[in-house]
Amino acid sequence: MNSLHNLQSKPPSFGGVGGGLGFSIILASKSPRRQELLRDLGLKFTVQSMDIPEIFPEGMGMTEIPVYLADLKAEAFRPQLKENQLIITADTIVWLEGKVLNKPTDYADGFRMLRDLSGKKHQVLTGVCLLSKEKTVSFYASTDVWFKELSDKEINFYLENYRPYDKAGAYGIQEWIGYIGIHRIEGSFFNVMGLPVQDLYEHLKVF
Amino acid sequence: MNSLHNLQSKPPSFGGVGGGLGFSIILASKSPRRQELLRDLGLKFTVQSMDIPEIFPEGMGMTEIPVYLADLKAEAFRPQLKENQLIITADTIVWLEGKVLNKPTDYADGFRMLRDLSGKKHQVLTGVCLLSKEKTVSFYASTDVWFKELSDKEINFYLENYRPYDKAGAYGIQEWIGYIGIHRIEGSFFNVMGLPVQDLYEHLKVF
Repeated sequence: MNSLHNLQSKPPSFGGVGGGLGFSIILASKSPRRQELLRDLGLKFTVQSMDIPEIFPEGMGMTEIPVYLADLKAEAFRPQLKENQLIITADTIVWLEGKVLNKPTDYADGFRMLRDLSGKKHQVLTGVCLLSKEKTVSFYASTDVWFKELSDKEINFYLENYRPYDKAGAYGIQEWIGYIGIHRIEGSFFNVMGLPVQDLYEHLKVF
Repeated sequence: MNSLHNLQSKPPSFGGVGGGLGFSIILASKSPRRQELLRDLGLKFTVQSMDIPEIFPEGMGMTEIPVYLADLKAEAFRPQLKENQLIITADTIVWLEGKVLNKPTDYADGFRMLRDLSGKKHQVLTGVCLLSKEKTVSFYASTDVWFKELSDKEINFYLENYRPYDKAGAYGIQEWIGYIGIHRIEGSFFNVMGLPVQDLYEHLKVF
């Protein structure tokens, strides 16, 4: 159970606040975090997803990768796209010292990642693509995240209890490891969770 | 319903990660946000509270006020404190352009506060006091928060639907207004919610 559940006293709504959105919105993401963030932003949408390999050209830069992958995921929907449908895709990467940290393949991989992140600043970038029949808009948000020095005990406790195998960089900022390990961020918190909701709201208002 | 509820898959626990804490912990705060944040940090505790007027000496500085008030709240428990009890108190202030924004007294006051915060950076500071029979530790955390320009429509929508009359500065970062309005913070997100859990964890480990 997470605290934040009870803290948002009412379901939010886009109603009356712009973002008319004559579109039928499809979130193309299996991430439960993204689905909940989009819902809490006040949007009505359905979820569809395809398995698109998250492969990007070698040598691609930190800010290009997540946009490239979000675009790739969106383009896969283009052939079946109907009028009045709007696809939202997103891709989040964790960037540490010039390299991407993917989802951990196993316990040892997760341990290695958290050991690498410990005591350092890293970047979390989310690329987002909005695609309709007439228009495509892509953008990204970047947040700097600082981990304190994590003990092996803390890393093991987290991996054993939270099994973050679906999370880039092997952690969720909204989970225990984020509570005890992250003392500072610069940028959007929700971006680190997987969706830069403030930027998305602005782009949707004028789409 | 808030997204973050479902995102923390397991109740966390301090177990095995230090913070031995032979103490029986009492959180002296009526804030449901603080209660949930402390629970999600993995602590077992009970809640007691007293009504202490949140009054501080004139001319007191931004970083002194929340610590002064947290200390004040803790000291009120000293006469009844038992061996092995640890009191945790906290006070959060919103600081905008040299002044404290309190909890809004009514709709018009809340509107005025959000209009003032719109398009600007402000500071959120939480003072925390840990008090046992033998020891007192106080500290604070500060986070810079940036609001985008809010429209009257957005402010009205938020006030009508969320009624943030228990919140300093008339907003909750974890609510709809935080999703659509806050694009950047520098510091701890959970501090803005009312408790700097990472710092608290460190202080508790060595208390």
